[in-house]
Amino acid sequence: MAQNVYDQPDFFAGYSQLGRSVEGLEGAAEWPALRAMLPDVSGLRIVDLGCGFGWFCRWALEHGAKEVLGLDLSEKMLARARAAGPDAGIVYERADLDELSLPPTAFDLAYSSLALHYVSDAARLFQTVHRCLVPGGHFVFSTEHPIYMAPTHPGWSVDAESRKTWPVDRYLVEGPRKTDWLAKGVVKHHRTIGTTLNTLIRCGFTIEHVEEFRPTDAQIAAKPELAEELERPMFLLVSARR
Amino acid sequence: MAQNVYDQPDFFAGYSQLGRSVEGLEGAAEWPALRAMLPDVSGLRIVDLGCGFGWFCRWALEHGAKEVLGLDLSEKMLARARAAGPDAGIVYERADLDELSLPPTAFDLAYSSLALHYVSDAARLFQTVHRCLVPGGHFVFSTEHPIYMAPTHPGWSVDAESRKTWPVDRYLVEGPRKTDWLAKGVVKHHRTIGTTLNTLIRCGFTIEHVEEFRPTDAQIAAKPELAEELERPMFLLVSARR
Repeated sequence: MAQNVYDQPDFFAGYSQLGRSVEGLEGAAEWPALRAMLPDVSGLRIVDLGCGFGWFCRWALEHGAKEVLGLDLSEKMLARARAAGPDAGIVYERADLDELSLPPTAFDLAYSSLALHYVSDAARLFQTVHRCLVPGGHFVFSTEHPIYMAPTHPGWSVDAESRKTWPVDRYLVEGPRKTDWLAKGVVKHHRTIGTTLNTLIRCGFTIEHVEEFRPTDAQIAAKPELAEELERPMFLLVSARR
Repeated sequence: MAQNVYDQPDFFAGYSQLGRSVEGLEGAAEWPALRAMLPDVSGLRIVDLGCGFGWFCRWALEHGAKEVLGLDLSEKMLARARAAGPDAGIVYERADLDELSLPPTAFDLAYSSLALHYVSDAARLFQTVHRCLVPGGHFVFSTEHPIYMAPTHPGWSVDAESRKTWPVDRYLVEGPRKTDWLAKGVVKHHRTIGTTLNTLIRCGFTIEHVEEFRPTDAQIAAKPELAEELERPMFLLVSARR
């Protein structure tokens, strides 16, 4: 069973104030890159693994999706997602991605934004996703980048020449990482890019695109604090096909 | 035109003393992992991109390869490879991987060990490799890992708790990196894992396996200095299929 940190009051309060919570998809710097990896969603049956406040579910419906199933472990997030409407086209359900089961060949697209690093058994989940997709179906997701997640003490350091660096250690030691982010003791599961991709391939997926998110020059010009994202990647974006 | 640093006397002298130069494949910690990604080479026509002293070419011939073409930019390395024999089954030719052309569908396997990070135009080379392979042919290579290559000052640092870390910066700034390794001003070309894989995919390859090399526990037990390789990956290993 995955840790349900999002339902802890302090975490939920902090998360609710992030740009991506207030502004939705447009508040997430990586969204344009992830969107570019999506197929045309019109007419598709979509499952969103870790739907949070439902921003993507609503976006998909507005862009012509046939039906959207939004899954999340957090009751508080699901409650807010349901309250945001609409009443038809989206179904929100509580689900633990570590224990998920889904009907076979029921979806054309599986989508997940920044949820898979909370999953301890990626092989089990990827198998479940593979089975729930139609042949040719798409699996598009973002996850925390392993460079971001691996270190004992994830954070910036400043070198002798005043350069910001991101000291990496334990990159090849996979497994849980406990960090303090919005709350104490948040548990994430570190996997290398190789492990993530090989697990997809072994489950039967074909890798279509792998992106270590880099903000565009236009994004940096509009929001100069994004420049530090050039030093080390925070997000890994992947699209694969059944 | 790629930099021909291997033919500089100081570089060549230093390189000739490395474990992998003296002991051959068995002196390279990543060889067992790379070998495990190879198809059975018996009966195959093979091209080795950056063959160096010809260790892999000879290994392939001993394991039943039909014919092996070893390519390298360094005259000194080719001279030593030729001198090692055998006289039949292997042809060594001088080639610049940045300007390479090869006959179409002439090979079953393209192999490359730690040469691609010297190549500035990966798309051009991958296209050339794709065309030179038969449909279903294999492309298996190792290259320096971008975590290893990206930093302004690649090297270890020690944090406040005496932990060895590898400070990363400029990971998302692709392009040349000038380092001092065996000689001053060695030029390598930094690409993210995403760029390497997407370039392969765009050229028509299917990604089969991606490995960020981790020494095995047995390797570390036999050679304790390998333990630091767990902190950050030095090599990226990829197998792809036409």
